[in-house]
Amino acid sequence: MRISGITVTPVAFPDLPLLNSVGVHEPWALRTIVEVRTDEGISGLGETYGDIGHLNRVRTAAPELIGLDAHDLNGMRARVARALGGEAGSDRHGLTGRLTVESTVDRVFSAFEVAAWDIRGKALGRPVADLLGGAVRDAVPYSAYLFYKWDRHPGGEPDEWGEALDPGGVVEQARAMIDRHGFGSIKLKGGVFPPEREVEAVRALREAFPDHPLRLDPNAAWTPETSLRVAAELDGVLEYLEDPAPEIEGMARVAAEAPMPLATNMCVIAFEHIPPAVAAGAVQVILSDHHYWGGLARSRELAAICRTFGIGLSMHSNSHLGISLAAMTHLAAATPDLDYACDTHYPWNRADDVITRPFTFVDGAIPVPDRPGLGVELDRDALARLAENYRGCGIVQRDDTGYMRTVDPTYERKRPRW
Amino acid sequence: MRISGITVTPVAFPDLPLLNSVGVHEPWALRTIVEVRTDEGISGLGETYGDIGHLNRVRTAAPELIGLDAHDLNGMRARVARALGGEAGSDRHGLTGRLTVESTVDRVFSAFEVAAWDIRGKALGRPVADLLGGAVRDAVPYSAYLFYKWDRHPGGEPDEWGEALDPGGVVEQARAMIDRHGFGSIKLKGGVFPPEREVEAVRALREAFPDHPLRLDPNAAWTPETSLRVAAELDGVLEYLEDPAPEIEGMARVAAEAPMPLATNMCVIAFEHIPPAVAAGAVQVILSDHHYWGGLARSRELAAICRTFGIGLSMHSNSHLGISLAAMTHLAAATPDLDYACDTHYPWNRADDVITRPFTFVDGAIPVPDRPGLGVELDRDALARLAENYRGCGIVQRDDTGYMRTVDPTYERKRPRW
Repeated sequence: MRISGITVTPVAFPDLPLLNSVGVHEPWALRTIVEVRTDEGISGLGETYGDIGHLNRVRTAAPELIGLDAHDLNGMRARVARALGGEAGSDRHGLTGRLTVESTVDRVFSAFEVAAWDIRGKALGRPVADLLGGAVRDAVPYSAYLFYKWDRHPGGEPDEWGEALDPGGVVEQARAMIDRHGFGSIKLKGGVFPPEREVEAVRALREAFPDHPLRLDPNAAWTPETSLRVAAELDGVLEYLEDPAPEIEGMARVAAEAPMPLATNMCVIAFEHIPPAVAAGAVQVILSDHHYWGGLARSRELAAICRTFGIGLSMHSNSHLGISLAAMTHLAAATPDLDYACDTHYPWNRADDVITRPFTFVDGAIPVPDRPGLGVELDRDALARLAENYRGCGIVQRDDTGYMRTVDPTYERKRPRW
Repeated sequence: MRISGITVTPVAFPDLPLLNSVGVHEPWALRTIVEVRTDEGISGLGETYGDIGHLNRVRTAAPELIGLDAHDLNGMRARVARALGGEAGSDRHGLTGRLTVESTVDRVFSAFEVAAWDIRGKALGRPVADLLGGAVRDAVPYSAYLFYKWDRHPGGEPDEWGEALDPGGVVEQARAMIDRHGFGSIKLKGGVFPPEREVEAVRALREAFPDHPLRLDPNAAWTPETSLRVAAELDGVLEYLEDPAPEIEGMARVAAEAPMPLATNMCVIAFEHIPPAVAAGAVQVILSDHHYWGGLARSRELAAICRTFGIGLSMHSNSHLGISLAAMTHLAAATPDLDYACDTHYPWNRADDVITRPFTFVDGAIPVPDRPGLGVELDRDALARLAENYRGCGIVQRDDTGYMRTVDPTYERKRPRW
């Protein structure tokens, strides 16, 4: 079963003014949709980042995969590596860590790898979770992923979620999201306001949702000293504190004294970051993400490393569509040691998806698709619509900081900020 | 595709008087052959140890797997764990390390897991290597696995290999094995004679085979001091020194000063041994072995851990038949980071195998089978013959030390010995 063609389509979908430590989400989120076709008529889907540098790398790699056996993941990754020629990408929005040559390969490879699993599942008539070792859960729990936000984009109309800039607004957002989707865990994206203000919001969440595990993620906006102060204040309140301080060294200083586990998707984002993080005792939870860990098989390898080294496993998310959610769900379903509800931005999608049957949360979880492959089908009209969005939106590179500066020209990107 | 039946057959095949650090191989080697059948008429094969404690655990676990989906490796391992009820097995012959509860589960699970891959490959019409990510090599190189040996079992007739008790005999054995099979690497099982004598044998091998990478494996027969002395003497001669001294602490002391990498299949034989070995810098090469690392998928996880932590990967072998060799070959073929020729006892098998087409080495390598699944077929007559051997041989538990004592009643088991 040979790869006979690959279509790479950049898309954009409306996003909300969600705040974070480097700025605010622009009105459009970018993704790239990958369709891999085979000479046996079976095709598979992948979804990845849409930033121009990455998109170009995906486009560079795609033709090199033509003719390869769709089972040959080793060959596929080797060809991607060769096509990229040792280039290390950049993560200009700065919300995951520094890229390496290997992690750049993994980012590009991932979209094709997921499509290959989709193909293999369809060929065998089995869901991808079965191919990954079998689902250990029927549904994958996700967390309510809260953001500080404005009530509208500058110059736009108010959105349906309203403003969340203080503890009351955050609790209200949590309530709306939990009422709608049934989430049993809550994550607040922090690093937006001075830490005291975010501690207040977490306390308000704890009061309003006494039984929901809580997480706070300031995206390395704090010094180790600030981190430790916050950690002490939130002792007994958080299930984990995510990336309080920058870099492995900073995290290690916090981890040495913080009363709760520290999680990361910033200082450990590639296999080569694991040994120094283990040696330093820097993190107790790693947020996996098949989009940058090199696909589903390599994400399972990450899970094995975490299991072996006594590191907890959770799952990270960027803004994404339903193909990614399907892949995340199959992977999480087949990963016994995934200890936490996964993160997802999916509830923030306003309407559009590129699949024919967008997912619905049931009691805060996504039931594992039981159809062959990923279990999703491309909605070609929607794909065309989102591709048109991409062509029209004027954004080719996520730039939360630049967008914030259009509102506040004095805004500075600074890490740590407090 | 549900598991509808499992047949567990202990077998024995003639073995030669191969010497090692705890005694000598008995006239019969024991294995267990596992056949897993499904309700779709596809069945798969596995092969594992034949010692009675392990055999009984395999027999205990087998009925618990009936009804499971043949894809559900996660469910299979969980059921094996439940069936064994937290029992830790023992490795009474002492040539791998101490077993843990988890590694006991992995040993039992492995045979069924391999059979499940065989089934999956057959169902899809693809070799197992394809399912493991694709072969990165067409043939898997193995090493010439040399042993000190007597020319015959006590009371028996001389065998075709003759005696090897000094450097000349060892070189002669190497030459016979390389002439016959074309091996490009050589491993000598040591720990039999005082280290000086084994150093002489290695030097003789180096002289006779100047271009063959050489390894020496005394199975932890030496103190760290002795190990360092030998390591200094063999500087520039060995590609790695395998298990010179016992335990992670001993290996770490040697590794700190030895000029060559240290390899192990004794102090790191389960995932829980990896973190302390990494922390101590005890080993530079791990010999994987799907029979005790929990099957092919978990062996790939081990490979990922080794890749991540900069540890080399080689492959260990006990006395085995063709089903095991097929599984080892598919696994090795699909593991990019397997840096060394694999070990195998296969050339020591005198005649019998349980598969219809026993393997033949080509230039020291086994071509990766290109038939679906493992690519081997059970020879039911041979299986019946080897099962009859088992019933008649009087051995149910490997006991190299006890057998040595029938020849030399003063023989003591001692580790380290020198």
